[in-house]
Amino acid sequence: MHVRHTTEFTVEFGDCDPARIVFYPNFFRWMDSAARHYFVAAGVPSWHETESTDGIIGTPLVDASAQFRQPATYGDRICVDTSIAEWRGRSFVMKHVIRRGEDVLVEGTETRIFARRHPDDPARVQAVMPPERILRMLR
Amino acid sequence: MHVRHTTEFTVEFGDCDPARIVFYPNFFRWMDSAARHYFVAAGVPSWHETESTDGIIGTPLVDASAQFRQPATYGDRICVDTSIAEWRGRSFVMKHVIRRGEDVLVEGTETRIFARRHPDDPARVQAVMPPERILRMLR
Amino acid sequence: MHVRHTTEFTVEFGDCDPARIVFYPNFFRWMDSAARHYFVAAGVPSWHETESTDGIIGTPLVDASAQFRQPATYGDRICVDTSIAEWRGRSFVMKHVIRRGEDVLVEGTETRIFARRHPDDPARVQAVMPPERILRMLR
Amino acid sequence: MHVRHTTEFTVEFGDCDPARIVFYPNFFRWMDSAARHYFVAAGVPSWHETESTDGIIGTPLVDASAQFRQPATYGDRICVDTSIAEWRGRSFVMKHVIRRGEDVLVEGTETRIFARRHPDDPARVQAVMPPERILRMLR
Repeated sequence: MHVRHTTEFTVEFGDCDPARIVFYPNFFRWMDSAARHYFVAAGVPSWHETESTDGIIGTPLVDASAQFRQPATYGDRICVDTSIAEWRGRSFVMKHVIRRGEDVLVEGTETRIFARRHPDDPARVQAVMPPERILRMLR
Repeated sequence: MHVRHTTEFTVEFGDCDPARIVFYPNFFRWMDSAARHYFVAAGVPSWHETESTDGIIGTPLVDASAQFRQPATYGDRICVDTSIAEWRGRSFVMKHVIRRGEDVLVEGTETRIFARRHPDDPARVQAVMPPERILRMLR
Repeated sequence: MHVRHTTEFTVEFGDCDPARIVFYPNFFRWMDSAARHYFVAAGVPSWHETESTDGIIGTPLVDASAQFRQPATYGDRICVDTSIAEWRGRSFVMKHVIRRGEDVLVEGTETRIFARRHPDDPARVQAVMPPERILRMLR
Repeated sequence: MHVRHTTEFTVEFGDCDPARIVFYPNFFRWMDSAARHYFVAAGVPSWHETESTDGIIGTPLVDASAQFRQPATYGDRICVDTSIAEWRGRSFVMKHVIRRGEDVLVEGTETRIFARRHPDDPARVQAVMPPERILRMLR
C-alpha cells in the first residue's frame, strides 16, 4: 500500500491543558481527522453518501494506540502523515506519524472496520467487507 | 498494587458523532479524568499544588492504547474502573476498564510519567522519580 | 413555565486551558447537556426515537449567549439549573444558571427550535412547531 | 478599528453530532482560536510570554454570544472574519463572522478582558488595563 496523505493542523490554545501542552486525547482527534482526509484524498465519498449506496456508515475503531515522544503547545503547526499499514479482511490498520518540522511528536495506529448498522438493531454496528469499489481507491 | 477506583460518566449527545456512537477520543478523555480521580481518591493533591511543593506538574502520557469492544451512545451511564497495573521506575501503567452495566465497552492502558518542567527550557517537560510521599499514597 | 432541572458536572483537568481555568466553550457544552437532561427529566424520548415518530431530529440552536462571572477550575463540582424562560411558537428560550455552591459562575441562554430534516435536502434542517405531546411534557 | 483577520478551519467528522451538523460549542471554540490568531497577526506574543513581561495571562471572556443562521457539516471549509468592534477600558468586544463561501453561518461576539492573576489569590483572575504596547498593536 503506497498511498500516503499528510494533513496539517494548528495547535490551538484550547487544545492545551493547564500543563500548557496538548491535552492528549486531541492527538487521537487529529488522527481521526487525518484518517478521514486520507479517505477523501483517495476519492472515498462522505459516510453519509456511502450509507445510501453501500450501507457503510463509517470506519469505527477496534483499537487505537499512540506513543507520545514530545509534547506540543499552542501556536505549533503539526503534520500528520497517514498510510494504511495492513489489510486484515474486515479490519485494517492505519498508521499516523505526527511531526512538528523534523521532530516526531507522536506515532499512532488505528485499527478500523468498515461498519454498517446491524440489521436487527440499528443502535449497534457490524463489521462488513469493504465494497470492492472503495478497496480499489485505497490500494 | 490493590487500590482501585471507579469513576462514573454520562455519555452526552455532544460526545457522539454522526454515526450516533461515542466519538472515540472521548474514551481517552474519560480515561484521563478517571486517572486524575484515581489520584485524588488516593490523596494526591492538585498538580498546581504539587508544582509548588515538588515541582510535579502532572503525569503526562508516554503511551496510550484502547481496545473498543462495543460502542456507547448518548444517555448511557458508563463506569471506568482504574488501577495501576505496573510500576517501572519513572513510568507506570494505568489500566482502565470501561463498562456499561455488565458489558465491557473499552479496555485501555495509559503509560504515564511524573513530570516537572525542564530546568533549561520551561516549554519542555522531564520525567522524574515520583516523590516518596506520593508513592506511599499509591501503593 | 415552572419545570426546573439541575444537572451536576465535575470540571476535569482536560476542560481547563493553560490559564488553568475552564476553556469557555465547555460551559456551552454543559448547557447543551443540561438542556438534554432537562428534556429527559420531562419525559421527552431520545431524538433518535422522535425522528422515527415525529421527524424531530433535535433542538438545534438559533442563538446562544453567556455571561461569565467567575472562573472555575478542575476538581470543582458545578450545578446547572435549567428552565424554559419563554415560548415563541417555533422557538423557545432556555435559561441556565451555573453555580459552584452558592456562587453563580455563568448565566446563559439558548434559543432553540424543534427541527426536522428539510424535505428537499436532508443536509438542511427546518424549524417546526413542537408536537403537542412533547409540548404537554414541557409546560 | 480597522485591523481584520480571517482564520480558516475545516469542519471535521468529530466536530459534528448525531444530527450530522456542527455541535454548536465548536463554533465558540473556533471563535476563541480566531481571537488568538487575530492577536498573533497583530504581533501580540504568546500569553505565556506576556505573563513574564506584563503579568497578562490571557484575555478571558466576560460575555459570549452567537446567532446561528445556517448549519455546517463535516468537510465544509469555514472562514472566521474577526475584528475588534469596541474598546471599553478594561474590556473590549470582538466580532466574528463565520462564513462558508458567501453564506454567513454564524455571527458572534466575545467580550473579553485583559487578565492577570489576582495578587491575593492566584486561582482568581483580575481585569487590568491593557499595556500600552499591546494596545498600539491592536489599533
